Amino acid sequence: MEIELGSGKRGRRAYTFDDIAVVPTRRTRSAEDVSTTWSIDAFTFDTPVIGAPMDSVVSPATAISLGRMGALGVLDLEGLWTRYEDPEPILEEIASLPAESATQRMQALYAEPIKAELITQRIAEIRDAGVVTAGALSPQRTQEFYETVVNAGVDLFVIRGNTVSAEHVSSQAEPLNLKQFIYDLDVPVIVGGAGTHRAALHLMRTGAAGVLVGFGGGAASTTRAALGVHTPMATAVADVAGARRAYLEESDGRYVHVIADGGIGTSGDLVKAIAMGADAVMLGVSLARATDAPGRGCHWGAEAHHPTLPRGRRVNVDQVATMQEILSGPASTTDGTTNLIGALRKSMATTGYSDLKEFQRVDVVVTPYE
Amino acid sequence: MEIELGSGKRGRRAYTFDDIAVVPTRRTRSAEDVSTTWSIDAFTFDTPVIGAPMDSVVSPATAISLGRMGALGVLDLEGLWTRYEDPEPILEEIASLPAESATQRMQALYAEPIKAELITQRIAEIRDAGVVTAGALSPQRTQEFYETVVNAGVDLFVIRGNTVSAEHVSSQAEPLNLKQFIYDLDVPVIVGGAGTHRAALHLMRTGAAGVLVGFGGGAASTTRAALGVHTPMATAVADVAGARRAYLEESDGRYVHVIADGGIGTSGDLVKAIAMGADAVMLGVSLARATDAPGRGCHWGAEAHHPTLPRGRRVNVDQVATMQEILSGPASTTDGTTNLIGALRKSMATTGYSDLKEFQRVDVVVTPYE
Amino acid sequence: MEIELGSGKRGRRAYTFDDIAVVPTRRTRSAEDVSTTWSIDAFTFDTPVIGAPMDSVVSPATAISLGRMGALGVLDLEGLWTRYEDPEPILEEIASLPAESATQRMQALYAEPIKAELITQRIAEIRDAGVVTAGALSPQRTQEFYETVVNAGVDLFVIRGNTVSAEHVSSQAEPLNLKQFIYDLDVPVIVGGAGTHRAALHLMRTGAAGVLVGFGGGAASTTRAALGVHTPMATAVADVAGARRAYLEESDGRYVHVIADGGIGTSGDLVKAIAMGADAVMLGVSLARATDAPGRGCHWGAEAHHPTLPRGRRVNVDQVATMQEILSGPASTTDGTTNLIGALRKSMATTGYSDLKEFQRVDVVVTPYE
Amino acid sequence: MEIELGSGKRGRRAYTFDDIAVVPTRRTRSAEDVSTTWSIDAFTFDTPVIGAPMDSVVSPATAISLGRMGALGVLDLEGLWTRYEDPEPILEEIASLPAESATQRMQALYAEPIKAELITQRIAEIRDAGVVTAGALSPQRTQEFYETVVNAGVDLFVIRGNTVSAEHVSSQAEPLNLKQFIYDLDVPVIVGGAGTHRAALHLMRTGAAGVLVGFGGGAASTTRAALGVHTPMATAVADVAGARRAYLEESDGRYVHVIADGGIGTSGDLVKAIAMGADAVMLGVSLARATDAPGRGCHWGAEAHHPTLPRGRRVNVDQVATMQEILSGPASTTDGTTNLIGALRKSMATTGYSDLKEFQRVDVVVTPYE
Repeated sequence: MEIELGSGKRGRRAYTFDDIAVVPTRRTRSAEDVSTTWSIDAFTFDTPVIGAPMDSVVSPATAISLGRMGALGVLDLEGLWTRYEDPEPILEEIASLPAESATQRMQALYAEPIKAELITQRIAEIRDAGVVTAGALSPQRTQEFYETVVNAGVDLFVIRGNTVSAEHVSSQAEPLNLKQFIYDLDVPVIVGGAGTHRAALHLMRTGAAGVLVGFGGGAASTTRAALGVHTPMATAVADVAGARRAYLEESDGRYVHVIADGGIGTSGDLVKAIAMGADAVMLGVSLARATDAPGRGCHWGAEAHHPTLPRGRRVNVDQVATMQEILSGPASTTDGTTNLIGALRKSMATTGYSDLKEFQRVDVVVTPYE
Repeated sequence: MEIELGSGKRGRRAYTFDDIAVVPTRRTRSAEDVSTTWSIDAFTFDTPVIGAPMDSVVSPATAISLGRMGALGVLDLEGLWTRYEDPEPILEEIASLPAESATQRMQALYAEPIKAELITQRIAEIRDAGVVTAGALSPQRTQEFYETVVNAGVDLFVIRGNTVSAEHVSSQAEPLNLKQFIYDLDVPVIVGGAGTHRAALHLMRTGAAGVLVGFGGGAASTTRAALGVHTPMATAVADVAGARRAYLEESDGRYVHVIADGGIGTSGDLVKAIAMGADAVMLGVSLARATDAPGRGCHWGAEAHHPTLPRGRRVNVDQVATMQEILSGPASTTDGTTNLIGALRKSMATTGYSDLKEFQRVDVVVTPYE
Repeated sequence: MEIELGSGKRGRRAYTFDDIAVVPTRRTRSAEDVSTTWSIDAFTFDTPVIGAPMDSVVSPATAISLGRMGALGVLDLEGLWTRYEDPEPILEEIASLPAESATQRMQALYAEPIKAELITQRIAEIRDAGVVTAGALSPQRTQEFYETVVNAGVDLFVIRGNTVSAEHVSSQAEPLNLKQFIYDLDVPVIVGGAGTHRAALHLMRTGAAGVLVGFGGGAASTTRAALGVHTPMATAVADVAGARRAYLEESDGRYVHVIADGGIGTSGDLVKAIAMGADAVMLGVSLARATDAPGRGCHWGAEAHHPTLPRGRRVNVDQVATMQEILSGPASTTDGTTNLIGALRKSMATTGYSDLKEFQRVDVVVTPYE
Repeated sequence: MEIELGSGKRGRRAYTFDDIAVVPTRRTRSAEDVSTTWSIDAFTFDTPVIGAPMDSVVSPATAISLGRMGALGVLDLEGLWTRYEDPEPILEEIASLPAESATQRMQALYAEPIKAELITQRIAEIRDAGVVTAGALSPQRTQEFYETVVNAGVDLFVIRGNTVSAEHVSSQAEPLNLKQFIYDLDVPVIVGGAGTHRAALHLMRTGAAGVLVGFGGGAASTTRAALGVHTPMATAVADVAGARRAYLEESDGRYVHVIADGGIGTSGDLVKAIAMGADAVMLGVSLARATDAPGRGCHWGAEAHHPTLPRGRRVNVDQVATMQEILSGPASTTDGTTNLIGALRKSMATTGYSDLKEFQRVDVVVTPYE
């Protein structure tokens, strides 16, 4: 699979979701006989769907809704909800910014400091609703805030950055020792993104319960143009699934969950993520399209307001349906933006698989979109 | 041909009609010396063309016209003609719906129940005209209505779904036992879609006279975006043709017809379908472009009005010529939308082949459209 | 190079000019030291450029101009100049037809019969100007008119069709026996199109002085959409050049010229045609862009007015410069539409080659346009 | 890597920056621990950035600014600054020319002769500001003006053409003997463009301190359309880096710098150039986007005003930020047009590398932009 790009430089051909498609083979199955249940640690969900920790996707209210719909919403603990007592007017303002000045205004709005007491308050709000509670920090802020987060009572702790490695080198600050950190913590940790077999294997060895694959925020991200860095998701998911298998063996049976995070804009992409080996998917833009999403028809990630090197945009998205309809239908759109789980179920039925774990073995073909 | 997509996940490269082209080699032949005759079971047609069972393509009237032009029209027995005493106003309404509300209104219109007596009546109308009579049911409805269909006197019975397998698994209803069903039936059965060698081989073993390749409705389908499922047609036809050869051997000589169903929008696509090994083609959009097609400038498949998971659209198509001109010319357009059989004949002449069976061996090259 | 497209069907990957590029390697050379001379039979030209026998490209007047500029203009002897005493008003009308009715009106205009005496008259006009005189017939009309053509005194005789084979089979008319025909004729014959090694080798064995590669009329052709037939030019030229080498050996030294005919829209394409092994190029659209071309800003081939199966269009082209400026500059456009020979000369200089025969060996890379 | 394009003609698959992406693997690093220092000969720069010798990019004033920002500006000694006493009104006029007449007017403006005394004066102006001073000539003019240039006191001498070879053949003038020329000169020479291993190796053997890879002016160039010549940059940089390694060995340790020149429109492209093996990059369009660039929102190269064969255009570019912000931020755009060095630093940190030399070994994947 290595290609010679020029004298002495080689690289693998890597594939995006658009490059592949699932193919039915022999058997078919009734859609009612298909299970989309996903379990991680002590928690079981009706759907393998995680709302991404992005201000346009998950607020405390949507985290609660998602929980009640059988999914998991992860609150960004470095977003507007922990910077502002009342972020609704800020969300309103962001949604109404003209495109040309959005980046600069958002850089200013996110310069407001994070408040520990707001972290506590937001987590409490979700936990009190009785759903599985999860919050995310970046690796840079984890040292500073993790005790607040854990004391506030999260069920799952997410450490999410563009690229998170098990071995961060810094001459200036003592970097987060992930392995020690996870060992000391009582709650299961999901960590990422990672995009290769080796990077993921190292993250698995830190004791993480799950690994995020990809860099997130695909729809609103300009990382490829800005940094030249890109992880084609189909190959990345398969690679990390390979690392899961390798680690299962070396650890005598510890199963680390593979969560595709980025590049999933349609139900077709969700299907392909599982087909390539993911256990679950973290959705950004797909949920930001909800009429009841906090983004109000806009979507952005943390890269969009980086103070000196923004690598993403506030993008406008079509508001296609309620979050419930996006997740489980009924659909009245036909382009894969609504009834994601209905579509997954139908794909599994069409190819004869009965649960997600089996469906990871489905046949795929390489056939780029024209 | 298998490609490593990531650690442990492999897939074949699969090709669409747009990826390939037919190439002339040594000999040429006069177009008058070329035969486009196609025979299946006891029936012989001047052209290898089947009108797809879609409401925008085949009504009782167009089934009769197609028969008289040397083609076969298959009526959808779950469409408007078996739900409504007089579907013409409904067809008129569908053609005039604004794009944004078309899906929802069609979901409502197709909620009207199917009436067995209308099945009987429509089939009788076609049969009385003296042409070969064919009707289609989905696998889900076959148990319920097949006796009505057979008693009404069809010559060919079509079971057509997005994916039809010889082995359907259901915990709730006793699935259709295709093999027993076909064995019991007096009329030849054409069944599909199938997209792979294995799926097709199993369908052939049920006793089917023909196998539909593909998922139909390509022009109006959003299956790839919604389900992540896609069958690139050039590879699929070649694979199923391979299954035909394998089955011919294992059955000591039973020849099962391979019918390309989907992705054929121009005469060039029709040519390529035969070149990849198809015996005949089932046409949707190509015939929906007729000024006398029932769709009145619109085209849609059954996926477009699925109650909870629509995976297709009512699309607008150019009305380019009469159905007769589309089939056999003369053409006054130059883009492959008219005189399909004239174009097939010319391609066969240019490459020196004299009948369809020979033309299946023509040379092709891989050369994607830019 | 063969690819498995599906079970049992294989095809080669074939390349267009857009897929490749010429690369400089070690040496460079002054552009003044480069020769673009081309000789075929007893005739020598300053440039390897042939004006295609198309009514939008070559009239008697442009044939004469091209001859004086060091190129060769071939008159279509089945075009308007041999159907009408005065074709100028017809050319004027064609250029002013609205797009939607152009095909139908051209079918009518070209229904006018060809007159033998006009063939004689047009050829005399060109010959009397003292330039090399060439005319083209289709294989279908060659029997009927070749004596008129030869008696009128052509220097080079061109037989040009979409696909011309050495072995045409017909049950109804005695086909043209190319080998006997060429043997009996006194003038050298250029024949084609051919697109493969085998087809070209057979044409070479008929005694042809040159073989046309491709199907001509690329810019205005819809052959791929209509017939599914396509010959990617870079591969086709290389293949026919391979046949030239093979035939040189089997014939103990007869060199048959390879003339790329189709797909050459810019000077870059012309350069690539020679780089892939062509001795000369036949230009359609590139010359139709001349302000003094007979097409008056329009371009079309014989396929555009086929009575029952038109496979081309009258297309509008930008009128960029005079024919002299298009051929040899100076250029004031920068997109490869003017100073074709200046560009060829510069490419040869940049890569260090001094004549066309040497330049056929230049290095190329595969690098598709994005 | 060689592909058979047709019988007997083979070519390598070559890759552009758009075809590849950098992938993080295991380690990450703090951006503060990353060095982007580049040293060539006796000169050390904070950034590996060279302003291209193009009138839209480098004037004496911008050469001085770039020097103060830790980069190197190279003045085109055959541009407007050495033809006109006061080129500002000319630059103003060029920026205001309508697109359709720009090429012709520029051909006229650049017909003004080059004055030796202006070369001296411009170089003095830059040198007097205390920054590293560099000027460029084409190979054609080097004989005529190099003494003026050297006497004026440049620190680095650049010989830059579309294709520069170590072995130029001419029957009319004694060509520049690069080896002797460089040997005789006191200042280090950077020479190019070259696009292949072999061409670059020969240039290295002339004693050059650096080799330019590519043909420059990618954004405004139409060389591929006009000449059929193209050097996909990712492969070209890797090939020339391979030549550097080979030459290091054969010369017992002389390290020749590889400078990517062309095709770098974003910070992502800059990152990829280093990743493929470049030591530094020469930027055109990226710097022409500065509000304080001399091009005033326009960009062009020397090819744009060639008197008889222009192969480039004056293109309009967005004026996105000051040159300082483009180089080192802070960025308020997100598309890779500002804070180029911040992005490079972030990419190096994300992949765990600490200096440019190490970063040349980073993993890349092949994944074409859709």
